[in-house]
Amino acid sequence: MTPPTDDTPERRPGGRTARIRAQVLEAVRAELGEHGYEGLTMEAVAARAGVHRATVYRRWQDVGGLLADVLDAAGEDDWGPPDTGSLLGDLTALNEEIQGSLVVRPSIPQALMAASFRSPRAAEAQQRLWEDRYTRCEAVVERAVERGELPPRTDARRLLIAATAPLYHHLVLLRAAPDPRLAAQAATTAALAAAAGAFAHPSPDDQG
Amino acid sequence: MTPPTDDTPERRPGGRTARIRAQVLEAVRAELGEHGYEGLTMEAVAARAGVHRATVYRRWQDVGGLLADVLDAAGEDDWGPPDTGSLLGDLTALNEEIQGSLVVRPSIPQALMAASFRSPRAAEAQQRLWEDRYTRCEAVVERAVERGELPPRTDARRLLIAATAPLYHHLVLLRAAPDPRLAAQAATTAALAAAAGAFAHPSPDDQG
Repeated sequence: MTPPTDDTPERRPGGRTARIRAQVLEAVRAELGEHGYEGLTMEAVAARAGVHRATVYRRWQDVGGLLADVLDAAGEDDWGPPDTGSLLGDLTALNEEIQGSLVVRPSIPQALMAASFRSPRAAEAQQRLWEDRYTRCEAVVERAVERGELPPRTDARRLLIAATAPLYHHLVLLRAAPDPRLAAQAATTAALAAAAGAFAHPSPDDQG
Repeated sequence: MTPPTDDTPERRPGGRTARIRAQVLEAVRAELGEHGYEGLTMEAVAARAGVHRATVYRRWQDVGGLLADVLDAAGEDDWGPPDTGSLLGDLTALNEEIQGSLVVRPSIPQALMAASFRSPRAAEAQQRLWEDRYTRCEAVVERAVERGELPPRTDARRLLIAATAPLYHHLVLLRAAPDPRLAAQAATTAALAAAAGAFAHPSPDDQG
C-alpha cells in the first residue's frame, strides 16, 4: 500500500489537503447525483476524484463520513438569504431558491436528506446544516423588524419554519409534483400569519 | 417445499387470507420498530408471524411489498380527524395526534417515512396514504366553513399542509427535540393565516 503522503497537518485553504478534499467532495456529489446513496462507495469516490483509496479511507473512514463532510462543506460557503426589500419578497425568493434546489434532477439536497435516514453521521451533519441555514435566514426577520414590518419581539425561527416547511413537506415527504405557485403561497401564508401576531413572543419569560 | 394452501381467492374479512395478512403486517411493524429498515427481512417477518416463508414471498415478493402493504393497510382504518367544535381546536388536536405518533419510540410512521426513501413501492404507498389522510382531514375545513369560521372558497389542502408541515419538518427532517408547544403554535399560525385570507381561492378560474 502506498504510504500516506497527503495529510498535511495544517489544512491551508488552497493547499494540497484542501484540494484533495474539494476533489473528493465533488466526486461524492457526482456519485450521489448519479447513483444515490445505494451506489455510493468509497472505491467509486476515490476513483472519480483521482485520489488514492487509502487516503479516502483514512480521512473519511466510511460513506457516512463522506456524506457528513459534504454537508459540513455546504455550510462553509458565504450564502445569505435574498434581500429584496420586503418580508414577503425575501420569503418568496428564499422559497424559490429552496424549490429550485429540490426540483432540479439530480437534486443533491434531496439525495443528502434521503441519505441522512441511513447514516447517523450524515444525520448529525444535516442537522448542523439546517441549524446554520436557519440562523443565517434570521437576517430576513431582523430586516423586517428594522423596516417596521414585524414587531420587535418576533420568533424568527418559527416564522422561517412556517414559511419554508410546506415546500419541504410537499417535495420531499409528500413527493408531490412541483407547484410553481407554492413558493409564493407559503411565503404569503407566513407573512399574513406574522402580521396577525402568530410569531410574537407573548412575554420576555417566554423567550426560552 | 410445502405446497401453498392459503391463497384463498376471495379475501373475506376475517378469513384465512385476512388473518395471515394481519399476522404478517403486525410482524413487519414489530420488526421495523425493533430493527428499522436495515434489519427487515422476509425471513424474520415470516418467522415472527408464524407463516410459511414461501407464502410471504408469494404474496409480498420483497421487503418493499411488505412495507407498501403496511402503508396500504394503515389507510384501511376508519380514522377521522378530531371534531372539537372549532377550527383551531381541530387543527391543534390533529397536530397533537401527529406529534404523538412521531415522538413515540419506536415510531412506525417515522420508520415508514425513512423506508420510503429506499423502496419505490413503499414510496408510492406512502404517497397514497398521505393523499388519503389529507382527503379525510378536509372535513375539518368543511366544518369550519359550515360554522362560518372560514370563507366558502377556502383551499382545504393548502390550509391543512400549512398547519401540519411544521411538525413533520421539525420532527422528521430537522430531527429537532420535540417541543410541546409546537402542535398548538402551528395550528394557530394556520388558523390566523386562514382568517387573513391566505387560503382563499381568488376566483373560480383558479380552482384548478
